[in-house]
Amino acid sequence: MIRFNSDYGEGAAPQILERLAATNLEQSPGYGEDAHCQEAARRILDQVKAPGVQVHFLVGGTQTNLTVIAAALRPHQCVLAAQTAHINVHETGAIEACGHKVVTLPTRDGKITAQDIREAVESHYRDPSWEHITQPKMVYLSCPTEVGTLYSLSELEAISALCREKKLYLFLDGARLGYGLTAPACDLTLPDLGRLCDAFYIGGTKQGALFGEAVVLTHPALQEDFRYLMKQKGAMLAKGRLLGIQFEVLFEDDLYWELARHANRLALHLRERLTALGVSFFIDSPTNQQFPILPNRVLDALKDRYSWSFWEAVDGERTAVRLCTSWATREEDVDAFLQDLEEALAR
Amino acid sequence: MIRFNSDYGEGAAPQILERLAATNLEQSPGYGEDAHCQEAARRILDQVKAPGVQVHFLVGGTQTNLTVIAAALRPHQCVLAAQTAHINVHETGAIEACGHKVVTLPTRDGKITAQDIREAVESHYRDPSWEHITQPKMVYLSCPTEVGTLYSLSELEAISALCREKKLYLFLDGARLGYGLTAPACDLTLPDLGRLCDAFYIGGTKQGALFGEAVVLTHPALQEDFRYLMKQKGAMLAKGRLLGIQFEVLFEDDLYWELARHANRLALHLRERLTALGVSFFIDSPTNQQFPILPNRVLDALKDRYSWSFWEAVDGERTAVRLCTSWATREEDVDAFLQDLEEALAR
Amino acid sequence: MIRFNSDYGEGAAPQILERLAATNLEQSPGYGEDAHCQEAARRILDQVKAPGVQVHFLVGGTQTNLTVIAAALRPHQCVLAAQTAHINVHETGAIEACGHKVVTLPTRDGKITAQDIREAVESHYRDPSWEHITQPKMVYLSCPTEVGTLYSLSELEAISALCREKKLYLFLDGARLGYGLTAPACDLTLPDLGRLCDAFYIGGTKQGALFGEAVVLTHPALQEDFRYLMKQKGAMLAKGRLLGIQFEVLFEDDLYWELARHANRLALHLRERLTALGVSFFIDSPTNQQFPILPNRVLDALKDRYSWSFWEAVDGERTAVRLCTSWATREEDVDAFLQDLEEALAR
Amino acid sequence: MIRFNSDYGEGAAPQILERLAATNLEQSPGYGEDAHCQEAARRILDQVKAPGVQVHFLVGGTQTNLTVIAAALRPHQCVLAAQTAHINVHETGAIEACGHKVVTLPTRDGKITAQDIREAVESHYRDPSWEHITQPKMVYLSCPTEVGTLYSLSELEAISALCREKKLYLFLDGARLGYGLTAPACDLTLPDLGRLCDAFYIGGTKQGALFGEAVVLTHPALQEDFRYLMKQKGAMLAKGRLLGIQFEVLFEDDLYWELARHANRLALHLRERLTALGVSFFIDSPTNQQFPILPNRVLDALKDRYSWSFWEAVDGERTAVRLCTSWATREEDVDAFLQDLEEALAR
Repeated sequence: MIRFNSDYGEGAAPQILERLAATNLEQSPGYGEDAHCQEAARRILDQVKAPGVQVHFLVGGTQTNLTVIAAALRPHQCVLAAQTAHINVHETGAIEACGHKVVTLPTRDGKITAQDIREAVESHYRDPSWEHITQPKMVYLSCPTEVGTLYSLSELEAISALCREKKLYLFLDGARLGYGLTAPACDLTLPDLGRLCDAFYIGGTKQGALFGEAVVLTHPALQEDFRYLMKQKGAMLAKGRLLGIQFEVLFEDDLYWELARHANRLALHLRERLTALGVSFFIDSPTNQQFPILPNRVLDALKDRYSWSFWEAVDGERTAVRLCTSWATREEDVDAFLQDLEEALAR
Repeated sequence: MIRFNSDYGEGAAPQILERLAATNLEQSPGYGEDAHCQEAARRILDQVKAPGVQVHFLVGGTQTNLTVIAAALRPHQCVLAAQTAHINVHETGAIEACGHKVVTLPTRDGKITAQDIREAVESHYRDPSWEHITQPKMVYLSCPTEVGTLYSLSELEAISALCREKKLYLFLDGARLGYGLTAPACDLTLPDLGRLCDAFYIGGTKQGALFGEAVVLTHPALQEDFRYLMKQKGAMLAKGRLLGIQFEVLFEDDLYWELARHANRLALHLRERLTALGVSFFIDSPTNQQFPILPNRVLDALKDRYSWSFWEAVDGERTAVRLCTSWATREEDVDAFLQDLEEALAR
Repeated sequence: MIRFNSDYGEGAAPQILERLAATNLEQSPGYGEDAHCQEAARRILDQVKAPGVQVHFLVGGTQTNLTVIAAALRPHQCVLAAQTAHINVHETGAIEACGHKVVTLPTRDGKITAQDIREAVESHYRDPSWEHITQPKMVYLSCPTEVGTLYSLSELEAISALCREKKLYLFLDGARLGYGLTAPACDLTLPDLGRLCDAFYIGGTKQGALFGEAVVLTHPALQEDFRYLMKQKGAMLAKGRLLGIQFEVLFEDDLYWELARHANRLALHLRERLTALGVSFFIDSPTNQQFPILPNRVLDALKDRYSWSFWEAVDGERTAVRLCTSWATREEDVDAFLQDLEEALAR
Repeated sequence: MIRFNSDYGEGAAPQILERLAATNLEQSPGYGEDAHCQEAARRILDQVKAPGVQVHFLVGGTQTNLTVIAAALRPHQCVLAAQTAHINVHETGAIEACGHKVVTLPTRDGKITAQDIREAVESHYRDPSWEHITQPKMVYLSCPTEVGTLYSLSELEAISALCREKKLYLFLDGARLGYGLTAPACDLTLPDLGRLCDAFYIGGTKQGALFGEAVVLTHPALQEDFRYLMKQKGAMLAKGRLLGIQFEVLFEDDLYWELARHANRLALHLRERLTALGVSFFIDSPTNQQFPILPNRVLDALKDRYSWSFWEAVDGERTAVRLCTSWATREEDVDAFLQDLEEALAR
């Protein structure tokens, strides 16, 4: 069985396992106060190139989202997000469990626009009962989104400018950030994020680490006492150095970006070949997640050798599925899949 | 200025003020453990006619909603409600502040259907990532809804049967319950609610009391320790007898229902006369809230003598407004309004 | 049965009921935005005499405590309070339900000292694991305390100075504030509270109102968006004018203070006479709550005609009880009690 | 520098790193639904030997505590714990952030007794204002405690019997469980915990794993929907297999217990030698944490070559410190420390 279900199906890049073994008997202070965390943070800051920034290392995405949002909002404040946002649909109400409403904006491609955010904020203050309604205070974006799409630099600049005008925090979920920033179609850079966001994170779990998300906090109000919040939310790893070591390796010799480029190259290869085979797509994704619409009979024919994620039934005969490539995907597996698919389509 | 903005613009039915004065120097235990609360509960139970039921008296609607919902749900559980539900839009995230997501169902008339609820629950358990999504455990209805509409007996029976099938609590917000149950178009009764709901409340604030909502709990799991929850949420009034006395009066000699019938009679008179004048309505409401669509020039002409609630801009020239009648509305004020409106329309 | 159990056993001062009746059919906007609330706030501000202050009206004490504390603290912050504080022992975990730990300081007389607070804060930052411990950010005092004792001006000045030095909010629970400030032994004034506290409240429920607490916010950070918090916590009364009218009356012609002086006069009369009878006290209270230690046989002899609150078993033969006087207590009832007590003691 | 500060200063037992490397390119489902988690759970259940039990794998201790407690309690319920309990002092209010009060019982040795718990529960229901006070519903124990002490079988049986009598959940924090159960002084076994507790966990982080806590749930009410809670609290690791693999290794060939025995042997060697040198102890600990009281001049002399945790200043000249051994501690390091200490004492 070859799995294209997700980008977290394997362990970690071998370089990471090697470094964990090499450092295993070092003794270090706990809770992220060790030299590896410091060095990893320094390497990330070197690439973000923004002054006055903090880096913290957390274990997973839901944990990171809830910790950052809880650190930012007062009880009556809400976070604006796309209807499809991970915090809205796939975190079992983690944000609400911290007391905050996720107010959603409609979306077709997983993205939201500065104009939609502006309208949400301005309509809040236009309403004579505004104090009876949660107050927008943060915007949550994902890049890439749940369906692999990207914000352009100009889109993010517009959202950032609006957030500053309206005094909203801008928080970008980068669980797959590498796959986004290395996509050929992407004109965003890490320094752009450092300049435009108040908080964002660089995902490790889905990009070659065993686990780990590197949170970059640029806004002083979010930086203040953030480690207390981490501890309270169970997000301060006792052996914090495990996170430091992993990000040290990922941000050494460009490894993080190379792993992501590998996945993107295979995903775009998939996209190109599927298109050539006449396959259409649920959404046009330029990153490591691809959403082809395939005949059910073809899926049936392939399902014993390959796996994918069900996405949406398109009609009685066709289904949109998600195929993920990752840092670990092998080119020969992609080619085998494409060949078997071609045969199944031809039958 | 004559106000049709809301049904909580005046104080209380005179009988209530008189009774408060008459009992003022009585000494009684606090926190709802006095004889007036016991008598009021007994009178309500006499009308609900369901065995094993508890009655509690709280001060206001948001407080009641959050206390009942917090009493019912475990942390990962959500409440299903109409997109327009009060708990979703006008309680500043009170439910989320208790940790729970409000999952909304689309609606055109403020109501939701058994079929929509069924689909929401079944699609939850069909999703392979169901544990990553909040679990539906309660259904919240309002009757009348935010736009004055009513559930029929058969609609409520269908929702109740579904809730029992799916092990969901059914909670009905009756902030305007009297206006609902006494509407000529309504075929629901208080015993129906006692039989079909797990919790509901009989609103006092908008129906002749200074304040107060009588919560009726029929499900044993919601009854258990409810007074602890009340205290924790700041919903246990020190001089609880004030609530007992008010509901004692309201449920003596049918006063609660008479006050509601008065408001409905004037509202339906308004509806009939407006219809005769060719006015159309935003929604067809059979209760004390009416939503006529009026030309902006007419509203301008009337706005120095009358007030109403803005509801929605229909187009550049017309606006839907809300007119409320209440237990306190005077017939001559309604007639004066209608006459002035007729003249303004004719101009 | 004559009740000395509490100071919330009766309804309201007659002037309040009269004013509620006189204004009953006025039509007014809801949620505290009416002219009565504005006038009541103006009258209170006139007495507080501090610039840039906000006044809000809430229904009860637990509600007020949880709303102010939730408005003030970030998730990792705690409130420091006496072990005996109302928020620690008698609010069913209302503060914890808003996410915050109540960190307690030992006390013998219901009060805490600037020195104890200093030690709590400094030891927090001395601990190398300080980020693993909740961060002190607010001090909660009651005046009078749960046992009727008072802070002196110099004690409150010391606490206030420390709070400013350590950037802690100072919040004073004044559920019985009138009984405190009018006690002959008290050298604090309302302007002192306005000058020294970041938030405090003037209790109505226990001092002649049907219900109501007037919250005075002097710190801008606590003022910001406070009404959102009120709404979220179910603490924004729909007919907010009921609170405005009551405080308008209480702060007209000195009524609030007169009612309190009446209660204190009777309490001190009780204290003096009991002392003359050789009765000792659990604590020396200068306000309307008195805590005599009485032989169980005497309590048995009186319990069919009088009631009180059990406080603490002193030994097998004697019990400390709480006797409350209030704005409503009748002098003849106090005298009857004293006479019967004297006889019972003599027997 | 040789560190005795903690038992989480190194990475993991080499067998674990080897297995992670060996399984690295396996593809597996996420979120703990893989074959390694199933096998690890099976091995643990084989040792617990209780029917109808669930095992879940979480990342860290604070996360585990808050998830189990949030799963168990309704909003008005509290957890009883020793004053020194980790949930009370070193989790930045994680339990309160989930809405629950930690009600503490006094302790001298880190333990609480069935008698103290009984008194806390019975005094709750004796109080006429019980609904104003948080309701005891869970007992939290640690074994070993924060100071290394152990419950005996008879003590735990008494507590368990009381909890069943009073309908309290019994939850045992086993962050260092192996060090406890393998201590020569311990008469508890894993099946005893399965029989007597409603929930407990087997700590990995401090006992040879990179991270990980295996939660054993025996009570059906705690089992229900536990994975939803895990996801909501950010406690469901995407690559859950990392936890499965680690516990698979630890519970293969008795490794978990062997690692613990190693640490205990060195700790008891330390204790014996220190005692022989005339050193007294802050507390008598039979497990891997030792708390000698040492002269400050001796600590000064050693502090450049060894480190430890500060525990408490005993007087102006002596300090209690914590020395931890772990699965990774080397015998030669302990001996070097003892020799240098002996010299420093002699000087």
